[in-house]
Amino acid sequence: MATKCEYCQMEGGYGDLIFETDHWMVFLAPSQRYLGTCVVALKSQRKNLSELEDSEWMDFVEIVRKLELTMDRSFKPTLYNWSCFKNATFRNQKPNPEIHWHFIPRYRNKIKFRGTLFEDPDFGYIPQPVEKRLPKNLMKSIMTVIKQNL
Amino acid sequence: MATKCEYCQMEGGYGDLIFETDHWMVFLAPSQRYLGTCVVALKSQRKNLSELEDSEWMDFVEIVRKLELTMDRSFKPTLYNWSCFKNATFRNQKPNPEIHWHFIPRYRNKIKFRGTLFEDPDFGYIPQPVEKRLPKNLMKSIMTVIKQNL
Repeated sequence: MATKCEYCQMEGGYGDLIFETDHWMVFLAPSQRYLGTCVVALKSQRKNLSELEDSEWMDFVEIVRKLELTMDRSFKPTLYNWSCFKNATFRNQKPNPEIHWHFIPRYRNKIKFRGTLFEDPDFGYIPQPVEKRLPKNLMKSIMTVIKQNL
Repeated sequence: MATKCEYCQMEGGYGDLIFETDHWMVFLAPSQRYLGTCVVALKSQRKNLSELEDSEWMDFVEIVRKLELTMDRSFKPTLYNWSCFKNATFRNQKPNPEIHWHFIPRYRNKIKFRGTLFEDPDFGYIPQPVEKRLPKNLMKSIMTVIKQNL
């Protein structure tokens, strides 16, 4: 993980591990501008999605189903954004691309979680790579709720 | 197609059809800020990726492989961005989401095609939904090259 990922906003990592499968690791993203934002990272080092094997794709498909259902139960977002970009590492002349998906729940309405109000400042538009860090105890509560709903 | 798609910048459509499969249609996007930008649209009406059937996913996987290979042959981009957002339709109170992927080739270096210089003004960063229309004959040439390399 050679550079600071554009949405994760974290140097050298994708966040706290929620769960893993044979081929992927699912992290709670350190930046929570959009409540419940996760990163789904491929364990194998590949550059492009076209290099993925069928088994890696089908494993990913199960994660898509599991994560969307989990977030439906946890925070009831309006919709989900998925993206596989890998742009940030190409700011280096010697990029080290890693396949990882940004899973970003989007919210039409405000949502209160553990006394904290969350709103989606960009609803209806592309997600912005702007860092929003939360207190550690709040991150822990988000992780707990997600794990309970897996 | 209820609203103007964020990257396509076109009301009521995704562009010119390049090819189709059992479950998806692949269009050359009307806005070519990033040379070779396409849209891969699901034929069935669904709201979320978790609703896709296995057969639709595997069909999509073949398109990913085919499109990346085709663009490698056509314009040699540095990398590819894939995203499934569906944000724009949610600007309406009665959204009409359609599953469609934005396939966006990204370029470290300038590329000359049919005498026109293309450059990626956002290389290393997320793609911007800024419209860039090309003359009809240039769009036709892009389409021809892509079809030859399919």
